[in-house]
Amino acid sequence: MVSHADSASLLGLDWGSSSLRAFLLGSGGKVLAERSNSQGASTLSGVPAFADALQGIAGDWLAAHPGLPILACGMIGSQHGWRDVPYAACPADAAALAAGMLSSPGAEISIVPGMLYDDGALPPDLMRGEETQIVGALQLQPALREASCIVLPGTHSKWAQVNDGRLRRFATHMTGELFAVLRSHSVLGRLMGDSGAFAEHAFVAGVDAARDCGHLGMSHQIFAARTLGVTGRAPASDLADYLSGLLVGHELRAGLAWRDAAGLAQAPLALVGSHVLCQRYALALQRFQAEPPLLLDNTAPAGLYHLARAAGMIKD
Amino acid sequence: MVSHADSASLLGLDWGSSSLRAFLLGSGGKVLAERSNSQGASTLSGVPAFADALQGIAGDWLAAHPGLPILACGMIGSQHGWRDVPYAACPADAAALAAGMLSSPGAEISIVPGMLYDDGALPPDLMRGEETQIVGALQLQPALREASCIVLPGTHSKWAQVNDGRLRRFATHMTGELFAVLRSHSVLGRLMGDSGAFAEHAFVAGVDAARDCGHLGMSHQIFAARTLGVTGRAPASDLADYLSGLLVGHELRAGLAWRDAAGLAQAPLALVGSHVLCQRYALALQRFQAEPPLLLDNTAPAGLYHLARAAGMIKD
Repeated sequence: MVSHADSASLLGLDWGSSSLRAFLLGSGGKVLAERSNSQGASTLSGVPAFADALQGIAGDWLAAHPGLPILACGMIGSQHGWRDVPYAACPADAAALAAGMLSSPGAEISIVPGMLYDDGALPPDLMRGEETQIVGALQLQPALREASCIVLPGTHSKWAQVNDGRLRRFATHMTGELFAVLRSHSVLGRLMGDSGAFAEHAFVAGVDAARDCGHLGMSHQIFAARTLGVTGRAPASDLADYLSGLLVGHELRAGLAWRDAAGLAQAPLALVGSHVLCQRYALALQRFQAEPPLLLDNTAPAGLYHLARAAGMIKD
Repeated sequence: MVSHADSASLLGLDWGSSSLRAFLLGSGGKVLAERSNSQGASTLSGVPAFADALQGIAGDWLAAHPGLPILACGMIGSQHGWRDVPYAACPADAAALAAGMLSSPGAEISIVPGMLYDDGALPPDLMRGEETQIVGALQLQPALREASCIVLPGTHSKWAQVNDGRLRRFATHMTGELFAVLRSHSVLGRLMGDSGAFAEHAFVAGVDAARDCGHLGMSHQIFAARTLGVTGRAPASDLADYLSGLLVGHELRAGLAWRDAAGLAQAPLALVGSHVLCQRYALALQRFQAEPPLLLDNTAPAGLYHLARAAGMIKD
């Protein structure tokens, strides 16, 4: 680590509910080193616990780089985090997010606000952390800035509409959490085998079922993850990926219509997140005859770096 | 109990996954006495356990009425029940169900087959127990026999199409189980208060959201049960009923379209089940401008009695 002594510009933290990721960033946002552990915001309580977790993951980096600025995003800024940082409202760009940053009680770190979408008619929508990944995606892929749809698959997938470099609107889909609770806590999980291998044909069959027969209702279609097993139509090892395909398919069915209604049917679509998950979504998009998406891996470091610059925390 | 000695004709058992209900039935299917406990099929393992549970709930009735025929429906007939009774295929009437009955290993009781709907194109659908309630509904309400849509709300709601006295087609919606797992195991449950009182306005708002904006996707819309709480737009005591309304609304959205596609838009619609739950569904149906449904409480005893007659177990 000490070898980066001359070039480190920022300690960036992607501090979600269940995990903490730390990035030592150098000039231009280059990732010099990174670490992660499971000390997510939901596992910690009280200011000292957060301060301890920070020291635990990056104490040596901070000792080696006195005065290194620190910027964090994610659930760390929620009411159960280190400090409750009010949401910034859509539309917002990097400057608006920078203006909404707050410091932790001891001023150790700055925290990026989450974002609120509220049109006054529909229920509001919320994100914390993904706004930073979106800022990073716009930095890494300038082609997304004018107009694009950025999708961040996950526990709570986010579909974001970008116009003129600003996050204008977004919608959450609880796809990943629905899959997890149905698999672990519903009758659907009982027959599911766990071969570990991805049953692509089953996933695709689920996506196609949502695409072609989604009008029958998601709460109806998911029951097939039981009936196909009970009747011996599908092996136990197919059922989890069939369910996953159904849920992702329903997300795409609604999400692509949402995108088109936003006037983004011809605009680029980017998938941001873990490679494995984005590959599944790319496969599902293919079944919807969508153009091949841009695939971006972890964009949080680039977002943190750009936001730190926008806030004047670093000059580079 | 002994006072019914002269008139008892049948011991009927509605033996589901999580509960066991016993009905001592007299001439014409009159319920002379009933009992229930939590010895559902999923709580028992092995033939002796089922035989013990039968003795436990109705041993005194059987002693008082030697030779009383016994008929059971529900998960008791599944592969994890007393005996695996193969499903009867749609379309089926009471005679077809009677023909599919099997006896328990010691011939103590007869078990009604569950039903399978399989059109060869869509994934198959399954029920065990509801077929008997549907037979009972057709007995109690002759107006439903020619053509009707019978809805049995619950953990796994069933929508059934009846033509010419036969169950022709059905579809399951996992509405009740979705609600339970989301409330107990997802992030949505964390903010939910439990006042105990029914927040009708919140339930109706959820139904209306599904009716008007269901195209945005159920996995998106349910996230509002969190965001409305986080942003202070709705009190904690509203969130559970809002979520319930959303899920029931999505079921009705899909179910009513399914009903209309089956040519039953003008046919009577009946709700069969617990009064409280059916009242909620009736309220939701109102929001969809549907005709007032027929409400039927527990129809399992009437169904068991009619099926026992169809099988020649009793002459009456």
